[in-house]
Amino acid sequence: MAGPKYLSGDAAAIDEFLDKFDTFLLDCDGVLWSGDHVFEGIPETIELLRSKGKRTVFVTNNSTKSRAEYHAKLAAKGIPSDTDDIFGSAYSAAIYISRILKLKAPRNKVFVLGEAGIEAELRSEGIPYIGGTDPAFRRLGMEPADFAAVADGSGLDPDVGVVLAGLDFHVTYLKLAHAHAYLLGNHDVAGGHDGKALFLATNTDSTLPMSGSFFPGAGSATVVALSNMTGQQPLALGKPSQAMMDAVEGKFHLDRSRTCMIGDRLNTDIQFGVEGRLGGTLAVLTGVSKKEDWDKADAPAVPAFYVDALSDLRGPAKQ
Amino acid sequence: MAGPKYLSGDAAAIDEFLDKFDTFLLDCDGVLWSGDHVFEGIPETIELLRSKGKRTVFVTNNSTKSRAEYHAKLAAKGIPSDTDDIFGSAYSAAIYISRILKLKAPRNKVFVLGEAGIEAELRSEGIPYIGGTDPAFRRLGMEPADFAAVADGSGLDPDVGVVLAGLDFHVTYLKLAHAHAYLLGNHDVAGGHDGKALFLATNTDSTLPMSGSFFPGAGSATVVALSNMTGQQPLALGKPSQAMMDAVEGKFHLDRSRTCMIGDRLNTDIQFGVEGRLGGTLAVLTGVSKKEDWDKADAPAVPAFYVDALSDLRGPAKQ
Repeated sequence: MAGPKYLSGDAAAIDEFLDKFDTFLLDCDGVLWSGDHVFEGIPETIELLRSKGKRTVFVTNNSTKSRAEYHAKLAAKGIPSDTDDIFGSAYSAAIYISRILKLKAPRNKVFVLGEAGIEAELRSEGIPYIGGTDPAFRRLGMEPADFAAVADGSGLDPDVGVVLAGLDFHVTYLKLAHAHAYLLGNHDVAGGHDGKALFLATNTDSTLPMSGSFFPGAGSATVVALSNMTGQQPLALGKPSQAMMDAVEGKFHLDRSRTCMIGDRLNTDIQFGVEGRLGGTLAVLTGVSKKEDWDKADAPAVPAFYVDALSDLRGPAKQ
Repeated sequence: MAGPKYLSGDAAAIDEFLDKFDTFLLDCDGVLWSGDHVFEGIPETIELLRSKGKRTVFVTNNSTKSRAEYHAKLAAKGIPSDTDDIFGSAYSAAIYISRILKLKAPRNKVFVLGEAGIEAELRSEGIPYIGGTDPAFRRLGMEPADFAAVADGSGLDPDVGVVLAGLDFHVTYLKLAHAHAYLLGNHDVAGGHDGKALFLATNTDSTLPMSGSFFPGAGSATVVALSNMTGQQPLALGKPSQAMMDAVEGKFHLDRSRTCMIGDRLNTDIQFGVEGRLGGTLAVLTGVSKKEDWDKADAPAVPAFYVDALSDLRGPAKQ
């Protein structure tokens, strides 16, 4: 079986590739930029796709920013977009909670391990939440009263039905302890519900590419910590979870066979596209995964196409 | 094969059990106390063992307290001890670093994810360290400068040769990011050494029993987070690691066949004793593991004896 087709510098292959698709789902970190550094030629490449009538949808696992914040970030990087063209894991989680779970009040509160982006998306769907950026939880150390209030449930909110874990630059032991208690069901003091909260994760990325290096991802700093202490696995709402693909399809009414996923990670982006049975997947080598990675026997997924950088889709420089 | 022998209420069986051993290694949390609550009859039981000429050694995975602090805690609970009778995972780690690793200066610094107890034991062995309780790392959030200083190595100490992860009630994303960078080798800016720091853990307990409930353990809040982001497994210096057993034997010159491990957790205490080929193991049911747990096909270890509570070793009440 032939491996992924290499497109960089091959004008005919690029044209053939572009003709196959109407919609491109684009990962952001590692594809458009790394941290604050936008890769060369990205705004022009996005513009080229749009000029050919393609729809560009930005699909990101970064849960720290809301769609509105992503829209502003894209604009600041010279990439015009519409907020509706952005689909983040925080938004995906909010939609899942409001439209799939449809939890009944009062037991419909979400305990958030994450940043303001998650809170903004929960608010946009009218979902009540606690935790998150609340200063009461952004406190280091554990006093005896903190242990007691979690253990006896007096410091817990009986209405919490979901724990939603994402990337949290302000993670604290206190937040982990509360999330753990909700997952165990310590807050079921009145016995009025079935105990344990549901465990959701915006995404399970082990690392976060930033500043040309790697940092702790949501999967490492919060999700796997909670999984390890509870023995429970979360339902993840970010790539490669097909719960996210279903939400994307539902919102954009995609023809999957005419849709291509573009990303830098085999185990999130490419797997997301392959398992979603999209018409194609394109790997870029400006992020996490390398060409060698898809040759490995245990590669999580293999792309159909690859380029060195997304901007190679503009084609070789005219002589 | 007969299961574990039940001793509670059986005076003859208790006498026979006690006659088999000269030394008892005792876990603390879940055996002597839960959090601040000492179980009934514990001081008297320890006194009984000593009155029969038995040596009692307290072997704990809790790395937040030094031996001196444990000595004070035992005294406050009415249990006299000698600091030398205490063997904690922080001490075990310090001994391993100073006497086994014998790292050469200047690349012998330890980056600590943990509390003051670890720092005290490192100091007692003359080991330089950074991180830990330093207020510079007890700071929530990540500024762009924080990302940059880790990514380019300018904020890292080139002399760090070990990352030591333990229970940290003041864990921060900043600490996790620094530990991750040391494990990746980002601090190898001068190229003067082989890059990655060694990854040690005081222990890998997934939970911490406190106040009659369970809280995030070292294994969950720091160790598994670092393992997940680096793909590396630490050398653990707490139970059930036989590195700890070797250190205990070396210090106390035990006859393993005349030594019994007493604890509440199958996957730490009992496994520690079984794999260490001690003469016996005694499970108590006042902590994490339950009687059903050792009947399971995937039980990590099965004790030789069990009691409902440690104080049952005093024998049945006289009629």
